[in-house]
Amino acid sequence: MTAHPDPQALAQAVAAHMIAHDPATRLLGMELLAIGPGHARLSMKVTANMLNSQGVCHGGMLFALADSAFAYSCNSRNQATVASACTIDFLRPVQEGDQIIATASERSLGGRTGVYDIVLTNQREETVALFRGKSYRLKAHVVSG
Amino acid sequence: MTAHPDPQALAQAVAAHMIAHDPATRLLGMELLAIGPGHARLSMKVTANMLNSQGVCHGGMLFALADSAFAYSCNSRNQATVASACTIDFLRPVQEGDQIIATASERSLGGRTGVYDIVLTNQREETVALFRGKSYRLKAHVVSG
Amino acid sequence: MTAHPDPQALAQAVAAHMIAHDPATRLLGMELLAIGPGHARLSMKVTANMLNSQGVCHGGMLFALADSAFAYSCNSRNQATVASACTIDFLRPVQEGDQIIATASERSLGGRTGVYDIVLTNQREETVALFRGKSYRLKAHVVSG
Amino acid sequence: MTAHPDPQALAQAVAAHMIAHDPATRLLGMELLAIGPGHARLSMKVTANMLNSQGVCHGGMLFALADSAFAYSCNSRNQATVASACTIDFLRPVQEGDQIIATASERSLGGRTGVYDIVLTNQREETVALFRGKSYRLKAHVVSG
Repeated sequence: MTAHPDPQALAQAVAAHMIAHDPATRLLGMELLAIGPGHARLSMKVTANMLNSQGVCHGGMLFALADSAFAYSCNSRNQATVASACTIDFLRPVQEGDQIIATASERSLGGRTGVYDIVLTNQREETVALFRGKSYRLKAHVVSG
Repeated sequence: MTAHPDPQALAQAVAAHMIAHDPATRLLGMELLAIGPGHARLSMKVTANMLNSQGVCHGGMLFALADSAFAYSCNSRNQATVASACTIDFLRPVQEGDQIIATASERSLGGRTGVYDIVLTNQREETVALFRGKSYRLKAHVVSG
Repeated sequence: MTAHPDPQALAQAVAAHMIAHDPATRLLGMELLAIGPGHARLSMKVTANMLNSQGVCHGGMLFALADSAFAYSCNSRNQATVASACTIDFLRPVQEGDQIIATASERSLGGRTGVYDIVLTNQREETVALFRGKSYRLKAHVVSG
Repeated sequence: MTAHPDPQALAQAVAAHMIAHDPATRLLGMELLAIGPGHARLSMKVTANMLNSQGVCHGGMLFALADSAFAYSCNSRNQATVASACTIDFLRPVQEGDQIIATASERSLGGRTGVYDIVLTNQREETVALFRGKSYRLKAHVVSG
């Protein structure tokens, strides 16, 4: 990797590295749809083993999808970054078989912290949850040059 | 179930019903340690398939544990209740093999909404995350009489 | 007011009523710049009596500006609405003399709850804080017909 | 100030310095009731100019009280500290004349960040709001030796 790589190529290299080493994202069957500097889009199909006792998708599964989209977007500049705090608003119940898409975008980046918004929509393009994550940058890279 | 059941017995009956119908909680190997009116304690062992690309526990798995503890505590009075919003602060990385305990307690209950605090600790009794959930009560019961 | 008023005219009538009866907004010298269905824009000049002991603007004053923008936007359809929960991320210190603008927009509205995002920027168009508010609709109107 | 001052005496010295230089806290008539390492208690009487257009206390005024209690508690060890993010849940309306007490306690402190919980109660000891704040420590002291 060169000293000044193309930001889009770098984001793709980081995402390729991440997805090859990401058991939890694989466990839940998430798929990376798009990646770029500061943004990412993932999808997840809600399966029977993701339901809670009320017969709808467990909030933790929706959070996990949003959190993965957050991770892919905030690491996309090859600065290793962790989540320090997140909030999620649940707006609509999600059913078995629903295809949920999480779209992450960067709202703020300065110093070592950033704020990212993730919108979760279903296959009818209804918003099912809104997630906001605060990132903290470590002093390390995701992929080496 | 009688019209005025013992609150502790009711909480146990509700939890027994929930845990028998809760695929996501089972998928992640959660165990219910304690239940009572307005409180619950669950544990989860972090396995290899819960890790993220940084080699630590995915935030979504920790959120899921907290969210389950939240659900068991806020449904414990046999009022069907859903999460409307949650926040989580991640304080320490969690490793494969760690045994995480989520302890939920009711901070406020009035009208149809409640606020619950869930503390996540590891096997060294270090706090690894703090979760706060807002509940919204539906017009239904969890178990019938 | 007619049964089906123009939404923009209704938003203006609601805002005019609110601002005439809003001591806290007046105390802090806020000014309403724009109003419409689901959105609002307010400004506030940071004065010496809004500073904290570190010599920068007290977080409560910035929250108050965001909260007012939230209130004007979520009441703009003449449904009396209250804040149930809010989060704020502070991104940059705000100095005496800074002119802060809060821009509120509706992210979700369904049933009796809504989610609103408020962005606070300074006179250099830098984002100084991000606020997200959850609203709960009462069974009342702001202005009568 | 000695190299190893008594923590309680240090907390009092810090608070005395802060309160002498805190215009916003004074503007809203807040009073410091108690201070110690990692905790603080402040009170505020709700006056007519703190009301919003619905005739109840403006959320920004309650947030400001909680935020001040947060600031006094997280600076109490003489490490200059700022708020990075806060959440507040509004539980009950607050009326003119109510005497609100904010009690801040430290939930977590590690590295440069901490988490503080602030409970707001009225004169009937009802909880009116719950606030959680995340702190970030600067490389400076509040008072010098």
